[in-house]
Amino acid sequence: MRVALGISYNGRAYQGWQSQPSRLTVQDKLEAALSKFAAQRVSTLCAGRTDTGVHGIMQVVHFDTPLTRDTYAWVRGTNANLPRDIAVQWAVLTPDEFHCRACATSRRYAYVLYESAIRPSVDHGRVGWTFNTLDGQAMRQAADILIGEHDFTSFRASACQALTPVKNMLEIAFSKRGAYWRIEFEANAFLHHMIRNIMGCLVQIGQGKQPPEWMAEVLAARNRRAAAPTFSPDGLYFLGPRYDAKWGIPDRTAAYDGLP
Amino acid sequence: MRVALGISYNGRAYQGWQSQPSRLTVQDKLEAALSKFAAQRVSTLCAGRTDTGVHGIMQVVHFDTPLTRDTYAWVRGTNANLPRDIAVQWAVLTPDEFHCRACATSRRYAYVLYESAIRPSVDHGRVGWTFNTLDGQAMRQAADILIGEHDFTSFRASACQALTPVKNMLEIAFSKRGAYWRIEFEANAFLHHMIRNIMGCLVQIGQGKQPPEWMAEVLAARNRRAAAPTFSPDGLYFLGPRYDAKWGIPDRTAAYDGLP
Repeated sequence: MRVALGISYNGRAYQGWQSQPSRLTVQDKLEAALSKFAAQRVSTLCAGRTDTGVHGIMQVVHFDTPLTRDTYAWVRGTNANLPRDIAVQWAVLTPDEFHCRACATSRRYAYVLYESAIRPSVDHGRVGWTFNTLDGQAMRQAADILIGEHDFTSFRASACQALTPVKNMLEIAFSKRGAYWRIEFEANAFLHHMIRNIMGCLVQIGQGKQPPEWMAEVLAARNRRAAAPTFSPDGLYFLGPRYDAKWGIPDRTAAYDGLP
Repeated sequence: MRVALGISYNGRAYQGWQSQPSRLTVQDKLEAALSKFAAQRVSTLCAGRTDTGVHGIMQVVHFDTPLTRDTYAWVRGTNANLPRDIAVQWAVLTPDEFHCRACATSRRYAYVLYESAIRPSVDHGRVGWTFNTLDGQAMRQAADILIGEHDFTSFRASACQALTPVKNMLEIAFSKRGAYWRIEFEANAFLHHMIRNIMGCLVQIGQGKQPPEWMAEVLAARNRRAAAPTFSPDGLYFLGPRYDAKWGIPDRTAAYDGLP
């Protein structure tokens, strides 16, 4: 039987998603909890790995198991064994053809950016920070340059394992609530550090250090050194993948509304 | 010279506001940072003590110092010595007649309550939680009973040091965003645990375990045993005191908009 799970987590305490010898990753905690509930080793695949400090609103994983448990049991039984900053939100029994990574038609991320003369405190670890005020119109203009299919090599970490740097950026949407910017990205897929590298450029443009057209130069350079430094992971949230409706996978969790 | 400061903090890592021999309180961290910057011991008074795990959007303190520093120096100099989950938001040089506690005309708190079948994860430590869905109309009706001047003994912790249990509740306002309730309280002053005890009752009423009129019975009993158990500190935020405009004290900080 193939089971898909939706997972929410606060990434602050973990060394990213992907299992490590330290066992201090979200995947390690999830597989330990699943294996304890199932009383046998359970290995999972995920829709999108997140870095150290990055949060998950709806990570999606799948695994195969000989056990027959109803979906509610998978949710409750796993949550009973998870740390308090990780929770399974839902479980879906899927056909064997479902694959959480290969079937995803797109991925969505949000970056929450705190614009304030004073650094974050109440929100420490949950928001990126800019001391300077940002020009939203300049950032929107720069973001529009990235929409569509492009070679995103300039925004790619050297450790990136993607087969191709060509990705299709579907949408970059801005909203603001008081001092809090929320910038949502949707693409067919993302390269390693791609959003944090784009955020670094957007913030420089928002601060007036570069004109909006600079984003086109950076993109055209296909060279990581052309872009700004990688921005903080603190404000980055994996909102989740999208799938064809036939798989019956939810497209959000309640924690989405907890973002500013 | 008398100086007032506005302080924001995440209360998760601290044993409340009030200084303790452990030195693990927000006041201890603030006074250590102030004393280091001032190169002499600085002692502060606060507008409203918060319990272990309760957060501050705008705590207000004052202290007297022989030093003459501009307000920007007090902010920057103190923040340089504070942990990353506490930050001074502003400093105001006040007349000697200003007293952060005695001059406060009211205090405001917010309680953020997460209504979900699954416990909090991304928001762990920042929200209270109810498994059951809540009846907003019933809670509003019950909250209205508390508006005005009442003897709030039923909602008072045994350790409370207030001179009188009679307080004037000015407003209780409800809003909801997805799964997140935000309930804001304003009163001339609050008793120890008063909001957490009121929240315990509101949640029982919202869950249909008690009718709205039960709140009037609890209030009239003037007996702590009549009320529900004290609700979790996780979702409680001290929004700040209010003062007469003549003192020039800000009435909010940017972190207010970071609440759901």
